[in-house]
Amino acid sequence: MSAIQKNVESASESYSASFTKGHLALPPAKKYLVLTCMDARIDPAQAFGIELGDAHVIRNAGASAVDALRSIVISEQLLGTTEIVLVKHTGCGMLTFKNEDAFGIVEKNLGAEAVEELKKYSPEFLPFPELDKAVEEDVKFLKASKVVPDSVTISGWVYEVETGKTKRVV
Amino acid sequence: MSAIQKNVESASESYSASFTKGHLALPPAKKYLVLTCMDARIDPAQAFGIELGDAHVIRNAGASAVDALRSIVISEQLLGTTEIVLVKHTGCGMLTFKNEDAFGIVEKNLGAEAVEELKKYSPEFLPFPELDKAVEEDVKFLKASKVVPDSVTISGWVYEVETGKTKRVV
Repeated sequence: MSAIQKNVESASESYSASFTKGHLALPPAKKYLVLTCMDARIDPAQAFGIELGDAHVIRNAGASAVDALRSIVISEQLLGTTEIVLVKHTGCGMLTFKNEDAFGIVEKNLGAEAVEELKKYSPEFLPFPELDKAVEEDVKFLKASKVVPDSVTISGWVYEVETGKTKRVV
Repeated sequence: MSAIQKNVESASESYSASFTKGHLALPPAKKYLVLTCMDARIDPAQAFGIELGDAHVIRNAGASAVDALRSIVISEQLLGTTEIVLVKHTGCGMLTFKNEDAFGIVEKNLGAEAVEELKKYSPEFLPFPELDKAVEEDVKFLKASKVVPDSVTISGWVYEVETGKTKRVV
């Protein structure tokens, strides 16, 4: 067993020993979803004030709305959420490369077949050159999307990994 | 401003007031990623023992490996992670419907154009009928994938929303 796997087991033991939330329902109690980045420096529950059971939390590279669309639809159409809080962050890896660079790295490290397989599931890496603009564009995409009804409230934010602050953009 | 937006602002104020982790680096310090579900009843940091800065956390509906592939590649090929901890959970919404049911609901609520738009980005809802089997299949998919090198350590787990325990499956 790896050190990381051992760490999951010991965390499970201590977390479950004092666990008192086994009664929570499947649909989020506060009917919202948070979409943010997979970045290791973000703890959404603490930073954005999410109590256990209150909200879906979707995370992917760059907090991409396009990438999250399947999960967003399930959250809204099947589990009753009515509000989206989208949070990108300073120092994001997605600000540091271009789509073709990333495909170049995958091809060099893993070969042309790996690139082909990846493109089958995900045609683009979805990086962005400007942070605030990327938040605005993703909110715009969700507002324009027929998949997200107009009744859904959407806001866009930036989390600062340097200060722990979350600031509204749109 | 909505109550949920106000809650983000007040959480930001209190979180940033005692924030001391502004120095953390972009690549995850412990070089691993956790892939789990967006379910509101999961707090990955607490339940799986993830310290801030240590691991990427990817979350989507059902902890789908296929859906997460773009993020996984970025985590490994661009940010140096070498281990995947995949965690699905009891009581998952993805156990409760079929692909065609979900498309039927979207079509009824949002119309045929919404279905078409969604399919452009995500051809399937990716539900699964059996929990342990779904964990095994996703781990198998990642191990077989040319996109994930053989050197990457992969384990599959189930989190119990009733008890707070995380148990190894594969």
